[in-house]
Amino acid sequence: MYTLYYSPGTASMVVHLALLEIGAPYELRLVDFDQDAQHGADYLKLNPRGVVPTLVIDGRPRAESAALLQMLAERHPEAKLIPPAGAPEREAWLQWTVYLSNTLMSSYRFWFYPAELGTAEHTPEVRAALQAKIAAVWDLLDAQLAAHGPYLLGRDFSGADLLLTMLMRWSRNMPRPATGWPALKRLADLVRARPSWKKLYELEGLSEW
Amino acid sequence: MYTLYYSPGTASMVVHLALLEIGAPYELRLVDFDQDAQHGADYLKLNPRGVVPTLVIDGRPRAESAALLQMLAERHPEAKLIPPAGAPEREAWLQWTVYLSNTLMSSYRFWFYPAELGTAEHTPEVRAALQAKIAAVWDLLDAQLAAHGPYLLGRDFSGADLLLTMLMRWSRNMPRPATGWPALKRLADLVRARPSWKKLYELEGLSEW
Repeated sequence: MYTLYYSPGTASMVVHLALLEIGAPYELRLVDFDQDAQHGADYLKLNPRGVVPTLVIDGRPRAESAALLQMLAERHPEAKLIPPAGAPEREAWLQWTVYLSNTLMSSYRFWFYPAELGTAEHTPEVRAALQAKIAAVWDLLDAQLAAHGPYLLGRDFSGADLLLTMLMRWSRNMPRPATGWPALKRLADLVRARPSWKKLYELEGLSEW
Repeated sequence: MYTLYYSPGTASMVVHLALLEIGAPYELRLVDFDQDAQHGADYLKLNPRGVVPTLVIDGRPRAESAALLQMLAERHPEAKLIPPAGAPEREAWLQWTVYLSNTLMSSYRFWFYPAELGTAEHTPEVRAALQAKIAAVWDLLDAQLAAHGPYLLGRDFSGADLLLTMLMRWSRNMPRPATGWPALKRLADLVRARPSWKKLYELEGLSEW
């Protein structure tokens, strides 16, 4: 049994999408950011970092969205969200999910939370540097997908594409949204056409891409 | 067959340590940072980001140190660097390796390369913020290890401890090195006493902790 602690449109999104792809039963618990519930004593017991998502798996609270994606993918091999052990595509899956997590997710964190760099607002230099860092990721991924797409692993969809599309979505109000890169746009269109994506929008009350 | 592209003491260290723990044959290729070889055309073909490590696995170049650690761990289950599928400890392993990768590795990147934030040298505010972010990780991990150590997974050593000890080492010249936290120090001492750690120092020509 799964319980997902989430906030709409945040990093919990990829875990929620994976649950919908799998079709496993789960409970959803909103962590109300407007009330700063992510820093409340009860939530910090589950998640000492005070971030979403937390996924409780058979009573065990677990964190880190890219790791949760892999845990779910491995527990439900029939959903084919991750290639099986021994397949060369599994190596690519691991590489891309770690890459997305440590380049994009960490850069977004600084982009959206200037306080983590000790400031209320970024200087133009820091803004430009973070934008360039994120754009360099889109350049690299777009080249990969143009040559070996349409998905991160090639012809077949996997859970890594859910993670990438969530991260592309976060760029929608940036000066250069990820959908400006054609092979990335093609992948996002494929993922956004999946029933899991549409169902998630309904359940989390999202509207904006 | 494995070929590891490395630079002494960098993020390639955890992959090199894993190879030594496993005892698999491998070739070592130095990527000479003094010559900026990581940005040379030949290397960029293997690793478009221009970073180390790259591990070539049966002819396939793969990147991202935390992902490479998992690839090696899964290919050599007898080395017990990762708990088997289905074990609750595997969930913890995935959580901690992703956490280390997206909090510590990304913060260190900004710490060591101010250019990635658009500046030649950090302001005192940015320095302090990055230090605080890294110290918060040591706080969280030290509490975890004090309560459930000595290793990240509890009683048993795993590959996640190699990653953590490498990252602790990078703090050695910071104002608050990780070894100032007692449970972290205990873990580092255990890992530094392993034959793989000593062998790596010899092979990579390292001296400083």
